[in-house]
Amino acid sequence: MTKLRVHNLAISLDGFATGEGRTFEAPFGHAGMRLMGWFFPTRTFVQGTGHEDEAVGSGTTGVDDAFAARTHHGIGAEIMGRGKFGPQEGPWEDLEWEGWWGDEPPFHSPVVVLTHHERPDITLGETTFTFRDLPPAEALALAAELAGGLDVRLGGGPTTVREFLQADLVDEMHLVVSPVVLGRGVRLWDGLEGLEEQFDIASTASPSGVVHQIFTRRS
Amino acid sequence: MTKLRVHNLAISLDGFATGEGRTFEAPFGHAGMRLMGWFFPTRTFVQGTGHEDEAVGSGTTGVDDAFAARTHHGIGAEIMGRGKFGPQEGPWEDLEWEGWWGDEPPFHSPVVVLTHHERPDITLGETTFTFRDLPPAEALALAAELAGGLDVRLGGGPTTVREFLQADLVDEMHLVVSPVVLGRGVRLWDGLEGLEEQFDIASTASPSGVVHQIFTRRS
Repeated sequence: MTKLRVHNLAISLDGFATGEGRTFEAPFGHAGMRLMGWFFPTRTFVQGTGHEDEAVGSGTTGVDDAFAARTHHGIGAEIMGRGKFGPQEGPWEDLEWEGWWGDEPPFHSPVVVLTHHERPDITLGETTFTFRDLPPAEALALAAELAGGLDVRLGGGPTTVREFLQADLVDEMHLVVSPVVLGRGVRLWDGLEGLEEQFDIASTASPSGVVHQIFTRRS
Repeated sequence: MTKLRVHNLAISLDGFATGEGRTFEAPFGHAGMRLMGWFFPTRTFVQGTGHEDEAVGSGTTGVDDAFAARTHHGIGAEIMGRGKFGPQEGPWEDLEWEGWWGDEPPFHSPVVVLTHHERPDITLGETTFTFRDLPPAEALALAAELAGGLDVRLGGGPTTVREFLQADLVDEMHLVVSPVVLGRGVRLWDGLEGLEEQFDIASTASPSGVVHQIFTRRS
């Protein structure tokens, strides 16, 4: 049975998952890299992105990496919102933009990008991006088919995750709360009153200062 | 040197410290007791309120009580917002309301209640409530004098805590994040962007499901 899983969704103390003013130069807006500081030192990030070198070593293997490493286990496809693919809004002005990730995106699987403005597939390395205008349940059905029996990762951003939570389609969600008050941006929690009734919620504090929270859907 | 300390300030995952629709029957509005569930079993609560009996025993002494017990250590006075004293708004219609706590309030110290509508002092047991219309720094000066060299507790609610944080008067703050999405009520975090620059922030998860967070002002 395919599960829909959220991993490494980083939020601030005040619940913002991305900052205000996203641009090509500032993918997280005014948040900068403050929500992801816990992730970059991990072995999962360093080795997954090929950043391994003498300066950074091979990455940490502590609490943060234990959670980060689950990101890729048993995943056969990803669903992401258009905002994660790029900061553009409205119709595509050109098709030159192929995402933030260069020639070898770290997904290594099919990726369904949800957008009202469909465009042809893009294949980069082992990753194929497919652009579709679908409601959550149909997007999940497509991604599950592409995943070939493995799980589907719901990659964000916050607006997309919120829509799938509201549709009660999320099986597991891993949040990472960073000790930062962003003040503005896109909130994860809006419109989710009573979410705790659908999930068991467990928390672990990491020496890095973040708190990992795992939401597991009650069966 | 008198410190201003916040203890046991319970908030939801989405940052609400109290619910919507506060009344005499529902002191926390629609939040009910959901934010305080971790506190009631503790020895600090059970013994401090005289609820100790055969049914509840003498209270738990685990992680939650370790934090709760700090509430009373070295405190000589409390500051609270008028909303914590009662749900009324505007001028007092009568002076019969003397707070939620009966003849023996658990403060055992002077309490400065901040209100635009001053009224005569009330003494109940070892607690005297003094009603003043003062800005944060002056309220702290008064409470520090009443505390006689001990620390001052900032007792809430969220609007009051936020005002003292904005005035950079808080030395320590203990938050308790409950795994609940309230959706509406009074937020703690509004207007506090960048608060992390003033504090060291440490988190510990409790087996009860809450996360304790300690903010310590950088010297």
